Amino acid sequence: MSIVVQNIERAEQSIIDRLAACGVATVHEAQGRKGLLASHIRPIYSGARLAASAVTISAPPGDNWMVHVAIEQLKAGDIMVLAPTSPSEDGYFGDLLATSARARGCKGLIIDAGVRDVADLTAMKFPVWSKAIFAQGTVKETLGSVNVPVVCAGMLVNPGDVIVADDDGVCVVRREEAEAVAQKAEARVAAEEDKRKRLAAGELGLDIYKMRERLAEKGLKYV
Amino acid sequence: MSIVVQNIERAEQSIIDRLAACGVATVHEAQGRKGLLASHIRPIYSGARLAASAVTISAPPGDNWMVHVAIEQLKAGDIMVLAPTSPSEDGYFGDLLATSARARGCKGLIIDAGVRDVADLTAMKFPVWSKAIFAQGTVKETLGSVNVPVVCAGMLVNPGDVIVADDDGVCVVRREEAEAVAQKAEARVAAEEDKRKRLAAGELGLDIYKMRERLAEKGLKYV
Amino acid sequence: MSIVVQNIERAEQSIIDRLAACGVATVHEAQGRKGLLASHIRPIYSGARLAASAVTISAPPGDNWMVHVAIEQLKAGDIMVLAPTSPSEDGYFGDLLATSARARGCKGLIIDAGVRDVADLTAMKFPVWSKAIFAQGTVKETLGSVNVPVVCAGMLVNPGDVIVADDDGVCVVRREEAEAVAQKAEARVAAEEDKRKRLAAGELGLDIYKMRERLAEKGLKYV
Amino acid sequence: MSIVVQNIERAEQSIIDRLAACGVATVHEAQGRKGLLASHIRPIYSGARLAASAVTISAPPGDNWMVHVAIEQLKAGDIMVLAPTSPSEDGYFGDLLATSARARGCKGLIIDAGVRDVADLTAMKFPVWSKAIFAQGTVKETLGSVNVPVVCAGMLVNPGDVIVADDDGVCVVRREEAEAVAQKAEARVAAEEDKRKRLAAGELGLDIYKMRERLAEKGLKYV
Amino acid sequence: MSIVVQNIERAEQSIIDRLAACGVATVHEAQGRKGLLASHIRPIYSGARLAASAVTISAPPGDNWMVHVAIEQLKAGDIMVLAPTSPSEDGYFGDLLATSARARGCKGLIIDAGVRDVADLTAMKFPVWSKAIFAQGTVKETLGSVNVPVVCAGMLVNPGDVIVADDDGVCVVRREEAEAVAQKAEARVAAEEDKRKRLAAGELGLDIYKMRERLAEKGLKYV
Amino acid sequence: MSIVVQNIERAEQSIIDRLAACGVATVHEAQGRKGLLASHIRPIYSGARLAASAVTISAPPGDNWMVHVAIEQLKAGDIMVLAPTSPSEDGYFGDLLATSARARGCKGLIIDAGVRDVADLTAMKFPVWSKAIFAQGTVKETLGSVNVPVVCAGMLVNPGDVIVADDDGVCVVRREEAEAVAQKAEARVAAEEDKRKRLAAGELGLDIYKMRERLAEKGLKYV
Repeated sequence: MSIVVQNIERAEQSIIDRLAACGVATVHEAQGRKGLLASHIRPIYSGARLAASAVTISAPPGDNWMVHVAIEQLKAGDIMVLAPTSPSEDGYFGDLLATSARARGCKGLIIDAGVRDVADLTAMKFPVWSKAIFAQGTVKETLGSVNVPVVCAGMLVNPGDVIVADDDGVCVVRREEAEAVAQKAEARVAAEEDKRKRLAAGELGLDIYKMRERLAEKGLKYV
Repeated sequence: MSIVVQNIERAEQSIIDRLAACGVATVHEAQGRKGLLASHIRPIYSGARLAASAVTISAPPGDNWMVHVAIEQLKAGDIMVLAPTSPSEDGYFGDLLATSARARGCKGLIIDAGVRDVADLTAMKFPVWSKAIFAQGTVKETLGSVNVPVVCAGMLVNPGDVIVADDDGVCVVRREEAEAVAQKAEARVAAEEDKRKRLAAGELGLDIYKMRERLAEKGLKYV
Repeated sequence: MSIVVQNIERAEQSIIDRLAACGVATVHEAQGRKGLLASHIRPIYSGARLAASAVTISAPPGDNWMVHVAIEQLKAGDIMVLAPTSPSEDGYFGDLLATSARARGCKGLIIDAGVRDVADLTAMKFPVWSKAIFAQGTVKETLGSVNVPVVCAGMLVNPGDVIVADDDGVCVVRREEAEAVAQKAEARVAAEEDKRKRLAAGELGLDIYKMRERLAEKGLKYV
Repeated sequence: MSIVVQNIERAEQSIIDRLAACGVATVHEAQGRKGLLASHIRPIYSGARLAASAVTISAPPGDNWMVHVAIEQLKAGDIMVLAPTSPSEDGYFGDLLATSARARGCKGLIIDAGVRDVADLTAMKFPVWSKAIFAQGTVKETLGSVNVPVVCAGMLVNPGDVIVADDDGVCVVRREEAEAVAQKAEARVAAEEDKRKRLAAGELGLDIYKMRERLAEKGLKYV
Repeated sequence: MSIVVQNIERAEQSIIDRLAACGVATVHEAQGRKGLLASHIRPIYSGARLAASAVTISAPPGDNWMVHVAIEQLKAGDIMVLAPTSPSEDGYFGDLLATSARARGCKGLIIDAGVRDVADLTAMKFPVWSKAIFAQGTVKETLGSVNVPVVCAGMLVNPGDVIVADDDGVCVVRREEAEAVAQKAEARVAAEEDKRKRLAAGELGLDIYKMRERLAEKGLKYV
Repeated sequence: MSIVVQNIERAEQSIIDRLAACGVATVHEAQGRKGLLASHIRPIYSGARLAASAVTISAPPGDNWMVHVAIEQLKAGDIMVLAPTSPSEDGYFGDLLATSARARGCKGLIIDAGVRDVADLTAMKFPVWSKAIFAQGTVKETLGSVNVPVVCAGMLVNPGDVIVADDDGVCVVRREEAEAVAQKAEARVAAEEDKRKRLAAGELGLDIYKMRERLAEKGLKYV
């Protein structure tokens, strides 16, 4: 059954912004090393960093019809997350769709498939994290769904979950855990600041984290 | 049998230039969604965009002898298209060969194998679309052919076909279809311009392309 | 048995610098087309070029404890070379460890696994050549070894071997062969300079390298 | 947080048996073309076919400690479904664990990682569907969880869901949908029987499924 | 444009049979080391060996409509060769289609995509060489073409070309070269028979093929 | 420099036989979880199990000349281990070479590349563990070396090292460690026998290995 869920809950914007400030690696650690999409999802250009609410798309292989449907559901601050129902590298998305999505306030796209017009998207600064860059065209023949739970690049994403994305990849934070994760992530950032200074000054992690004894216990030998 | 075909027909330069102006994604759509090389063929640096006539090279794995032979066959405005006879990532091509090819007016290289000296090639602005960046050296022991039809990254390329390449990848246009494709591609560019404005203004693809009725017919439900 | 070898021999700095100046492709050719790490090892940003002495790390999959141990063994001018004992893409290394390593004079990292915080590493100009960019966190539970011979991306690396790395990838030079290789590489650079000029002037490799006769002997036909 | 959920609901055995009788391809179609694990999950030997209730395992890369924990949770008719928290090919499972699991009535293993002792497992007729066959040993150092929802080979699996597996791969059926899916799958099997006879007799699918008109409408030309 | 070419020329059956008798490796060598499909195309069961005339199918990703169209074009002794227009692993083909194809005298399927019902296909002894085994269902929404030239797994296949397939993979022989290739292949088989006896008796290839002198000339040193 | 080392040391046959009896997974564990070749090396047929002394071959991509050279160096009980100097899937080896190798007492082949004539090799029961099955022919133009250390599928193999291979893959044991490893492997087999009985009787690994306390300490919660 193909459905479009029209009203989804989103996290508070202020929380989303706090997650964006922390970045993928920190958020991932803060929530207990979970939520990362597979490493084959890469940004089409370097330097983008954002957090946004997921509008999810489940689409057939090689068919981008549902992207048009999804765009109508976008609110400012959203990001689209597209998972094909079978593996695909086809170019579901290009500069026209990006123009349309941006007009709705969309902040970017996560897609476990291909994207095209990357020179234009880069010039527009419309960030995409994708599995492939491939101009292969798609059709508009078969339905999918919008705003249902999807598994994208190996990770479950619910509509309204917070997506954090930067040059390290993409991490999903459950909407209902977003505030708690933001808090832990910020604590982590604060703690790292001190560590960074001590490490930069030449202190060793072996000492800062008091690892020497446990290493010896486990049997590490210096020769 | 190893042969070098010395006289190949090429498309008119003005047509080639028109295809270059349209870019890969548009040309690919204009000719009916065909002609794309596989997505593993990627540019060594961003921002190059060209169209050129193919001088094809069929070469043994790990043997770049035929590149030297091919360079003699180049005319200004050509691009080399190398397909190994068995899968290879070896670095068939580097800055010396690029210097030689450029002296003949060559505009770039498409290779379903490896390339090296990419820092130099980037500095020279000699564009290469390849399967790999790999310094692995090659030998000069076994013959291949020049200007015979080859299958490069899954696509048939005839000598003299027009290669269109940009950040989205590589598309081949049959020489004899080049003019018709250029015309359709330009029409497509023109039509997109209007769509882009309407989409940027917030109109939806669902309305512009009149998709709502057909979506409902197929059974899409809004909940 | 998990060991840390504390005193390793290194090549002379002057020799290392000469290798850096020649670059990966030339050094690889100069030592007889050997020593390249597999092509899946790629730099996290373009433009880095270095040579350095290898401090090797053999680490369990998903466990970066030994990186902390290795950092203590670094001397100025070293580079870390990490090979997991089983395939992994996890992010063993990020900006905190880079800060610590740099404080010891470390010039970079080669890792047949993942790295994270790549935006920060790029901003710091701390070069990494890796198999993946992946924020996936690691644990500190299981021992490995430091400064033992490792096979990294298909190539044997001994502690103290010279690593040459640039945009073309990574090449290892045995410490005891480093001087001889530097000499051959420099000779190669010198010889190429003349070739480059002749090729740029339009002379053909077919003539410069006197290939025409041997091509004919092997049976190449011009049609 | 690492947890073991001790009491999970399972589908009725009779429903599970009906699904087993239908096989993967039919069940997948019957539930609307969903539920398939990725195609890299393959049986270690041909000819196994089963359905069973999932006991799920979320395990760190290269650490099989949680398999021991999971075995205690097995009831007769269960199958273990292991998803590593980061990609791994390590051999988490071999003949000793299979002996233990079988003693609890376990019917097999689905694992998005490696398995070993495959000659013994084949001799025992203990079926495993895995990503790799690899003898690489694992450690017992880091916790995971048992009977939590996992994403295995790209598909969400809840504890107690029904796993259907045969030579075509692996399909998951939600526990609460199992009966309805079994019914549809059986209807499909019945309908196919008639089709098979007509097709074997030489009737064409074009006629049986009345495709000719729609093909003509879409523009198919016979030349 | 989507077309079905209804009348294709085929090679003589007696020639096809002679090619089948020689097998893939020999035929490939006999025609000058060309014609092999990529190594990812593997048989679904061991022991099949055949030659047959190609009925080619160009099909959209995840859409098997054209298989039904192609079956009507089959004559006894044909094999279907399906190339998706974009990479796909979906299961285009199963036991119902095999039943239908066999009723037309079809000898098998070569497909650069997925196949399902492999247990049934194996029981029927309907051989398939495919890229994947995957139960993923397909739709019937978009047209393709039948009996046009296709590139399948990296190799150009024209309708009516002879396909030779066995446990080593798949090789295509141009229809018009089939007789000449059969002759060379048979000569090769005859020559190999003598070599096999001498090698089995302990004579060395180094002596039979008189390699020692050339090895010494090239500089091989025995130490 | 291309060399053939003619006299290599081998382990005692009785030790080799003991390792064969233990199998890959056990030997790998017994020597401390090291020595496994990458998981892409797979047997061409199931059920082979052996141990043998390595005669190593370093060969150019797509060139099998050195196999002929290596065959002369074989003694009864040896196995050939071929590593290409650059990645290759070409079919370096088929039934003629197997006939020749067997005449010298060779027990099989490990190759990080392709093999062909697999139906014949299977009928002959000549076991091969390879990266690919591919009929692609090779040339005899470029030298390599025999009986030098090679890195095969990510693992260093010295001439004379003991190769253990079975359906789980391939493990290398250093010649000088072979006796000690055989002893530990046999001890492991003996210990496993008792464990297997207890597990078969329904005892849990959690109890046999006394894991419950450590799991609780690490924080595992039962809910």
